[in-house]
Amino acid sequence: MATQRLAPAGTRDFFPEDVKLRERAFRAIRETFERYGFWPLETPAYERVELLAGKYGEEGEKLIFKILKRGVHAASGEADLALRYDFTVPLARVVAQHRDRIGPVFKRYQIGPVWRADRPGKARYREFFQCDVDTVGSASPLADAEVLLALTEALGALGLADFTVRLNSRKVLQGLLRAYALPAEHASGALVALDKLDKIGADAVAEELAERGAPAAAVAEMMKDVRAASPIERVRERLAGPGVGAEGLAEVDELTALVSPLLRHGKLAQDPFLVRGLDYYTGPVFEVFSGDLSSSIASGGRYDELIGALSGGKSLPACGGSLGIERILLLLEGRAEKEDCTATALVAVWNEEMREDALRLATELRRCGVSTDVYLGSGGVKKQLRQASTAGIPLCVLCGPDEKARGEVVIRDMRAGTQRSEPAAGFAERLAAELRAAEERGSGEA
Amino acid sequence: MATQRLAPAGTRDFFPEDVKLRERAFRAIRETFERYGFWPLETPAYERVELLAGKYGEEGEKLIFKILKRGVHAASGEADLALRYDFTVPLARVVAQHRDRIGPVFKRYQIGPVWRADRPGKARYREFFQCDVDTVGSASPLADAEVLLALTEALGALGLADFTVRLNSRKVLQGLLRAYALPAEHASGALVALDKLDKIGADAVAEELAERGAPAAAVAEMMKDVRAASPIERVRERLAGPGVGAEGLAEVDELTALVSPLLRHGKLAQDPFLVRGLDYYTGPVFEVFSGDLSSSIASGGRYDELIGALSGGKSLPACGGSLGIERILLLLEGRAEKEDCTATALVAVWNEEMREDALRLATELRRCGVSTDVYLGSGGVKKQLRQASTAGIPLCVLCGPDEKARGEVVIRDMRAGTQRSEPAAGFAERLAAELRAAEERGSGEA
Repeated sequence: MATQRLAPAGTRDFFPEDVKLRERAFRAIRETFERYGFWPLETPAYERVELLAGKYGEEGEKLIFKILKRGVHAASGEADLALRYDFTVPLARVVAQHRDRIGPVFKRYQIGPVWRADRPGKARYREFFQCDVDTVGSASPLADAEVLLALTEALGALGLADFTVRLNSRKVLQGLLRAYALPAEHASGALVALDKLDKIGADAVAEELAERGAPAAAVAEMMKDVRAASPIERVRERLAGPGVGAEGLAEVDELTALVSPLLRHGKLAQDPFLVRGLDYYTGPVFEVFSGDLSSSIASGGRYDELIGALSGGKSLPACGGSLGIERILLLLEGRAEKEDCTATALVAVWNEEMREDALRLATELRRCGVSTDVYLGSGGVKKQLRQASTAGIPLCVLCGPDEKARGEVVIRDMRAGTQRSEPAAGFAERLAAELRAAEERGSGEA
Repeated sequence: MATQRLAPAGTRDFFPEDVKLRERAFRAIRETFERYGFWPLETPAYERVELLAGKYGEEGEKLIFKILKRGVHAASGEADLALRYDFTVPLARVVAQHRDRIGPVFKRYQIGPVWRADRPGKARYREFFQCDVDTVGSASPLADAEVLLALTEALGALGLADFTVRLNSRKVLQGLLRAYALPAEHASGALVALDKLDKIGADAVAEELAERGAPAAAVAEMMKDVRAASPIERVRERLAGPGVGAEGLAEVDELTALVSPLLRHGKLAQDPFLVRGLDYYTGPVFEVFSGDLSSSIASGGRYDELIGALSGGKSLPACGGSLGIERILLLLEGRAEKEDCTATALVAVWNEEMREDALRLATELRRCGVSTDVYLGSGGVKKQLRQASTAGIPLCVLCGPDEKARGEVVIRDMRAGTQRSEPAAGFAERLAAELRAAEERGSGEA
């Protein structure tokens, strides 16, 4: 098949049942977020390229989709726009641009696609949905706690109860790098390497640090902690004195104390080597893992400097988190019942002369709220009924010249194989009422 | 303000009340479309650049946003992807790619953003939403009629009853150009010029045709019809003999006969010079106009060759249409009541020591379905109440050390200015029940 006939790599087409399944998940997430006092914000699919530059770290930067300039500038091969990579940097831009519309504390959620030119893989797409909550304007640990609770409650609402929230603070990492006597110029590279700990293991991290030119003594100290039976206990000892590391531990402890007693699903675990790849985090960070998936299903943290940097200096505390809905739906696959995306009734078309009659009957049913198809092919009535049956349409409505002359319609129950004639006048209202009653009985029984 | 702090030209940020307003409109549209037997399909934001090339005509082609190749190929300045310009070409690609998943007739809707690098203007954005219905696999005029009915019913559901559907067929235009003896090589340019008739007027169209090198005699003949008191009557005379033009008139007449008697909102009008800019239309085309807006609020038509061309030859009849929701919302502006995007309750935080208590109370309310904020600032209780009042939050929940000792909470009605104490145990369930009862009374009265 010519490639122009294929969806681009890492993207998907969602057919009706999948759209409905995803919509139901988004609805559950939205309802949870709104109960937590977050409200929807929507930003454009793309931002100015300079806004996104320098925000996502060494690895992230390469994955940004850039949009070519238009018109006479297209020939320059330069990009001035880029598809959003996440919702956090656009949020920071919104706050900087619309300070007048935003109160002292701004809580918003955003659900939609983001784009990253990652290598496509299992539950890893180039176009994927994120569901974010963020709070701008609060330095209170209550804000971090709320984010964690809203996200874990949303996971619960989706039917996912078995997960671990790994918690750390960027300050713990800062303290550790100092304690290992790692020179400041190696800090950023060390975090990039440490961020891969889960995926590549301690040996490979040590190797990468060595390749990046980190002093061997610092790497050896770090590896002692990384490889310890209980890394968090070793780290507590190492960061016992006053300093940024101890501050980080205190904020993780406080957050744990706030969230733990209220957690209905999953559990919290401190992980002193959790990094969260993105450059903008400054305080508590977290990632949520579940089942066999090596990638997180939710993540986030505090980023107190990002918005200030954009707003022209005055720092504005902020924190937030994001659900990776693609992986969550993968974990839930097969559990949710798919919604039916088939019309309830098909109006058959006796022949070309009776098209108008068929369309009128269909329109009457539609106006009574009954999802209705009218036959759009060129087959006879037998073929039409067969197609309705194959498509799983439960009711057929027929009106031939004889029925028309008598002012009647035939209603055929495709499952029972029975049919009845009744006056055409008011048939749609009666049928709609019948269907509603049957539905109420059904939901009453369920 | 530095430009990096501004949303890109022609795009918008939607704040909560606007998101809710738009969501409500989309919901009404979705419900209408599903009653007409259309089901949701979602395609990626971008497609391969070669898919979109050559589909949108001379003017459209310039407006495509192209995405730069990634990685080592970025330096080439070449684009391999492009943001979707509409939903029709992606639909054609889906049908070509997934023929096995699609029955003899495929009816789908798609609602979402599309992107065109147009000059931004009143209700004209570079990122804007479209709401499309299309039927693939049917050559029946019932399919065209359904599309028109679904779109006009959706307009009605949105509260827009006053509009005109202008109807034509590409075959009428083909017949006319032959009747004017316009050489075939000028046909495409003539349609581009005619497409601007509404915007630039007959004189400017004639001028543009002359500039494009069309023979003066042909232009003069065309202008006689364009400037006639009743263009459609002149055109009927001109196309009276057998031929493609007469076929076009017949299909417009048939469609009018099918739709007219069922139209609940708006009216139909034949317009023999309506073009619909896009290159892929082959049969009936329509545009819907309302109020003072010079641009259409809905449009569409039949495109029997587009899908076949992509599927490798075998033609597959198709037709569809699209609502321009941005212009529709502009017409409806101020008519719809905005939804409240404020929490129902604020839990005040007595002091830092009582953060855990406040978060627990808030969590209880949230779990009972009450949208709740917990105070995230650093002010005292008085300031907290003042902020709740300013934000329009109707209820405050307070629990100081005395209340805690007594096992009580204080619930303050911010509108009435009254407050009461009650046992903390079960307060959330009771308050939630009270709110539900009040809401039911409210909707009962309304």
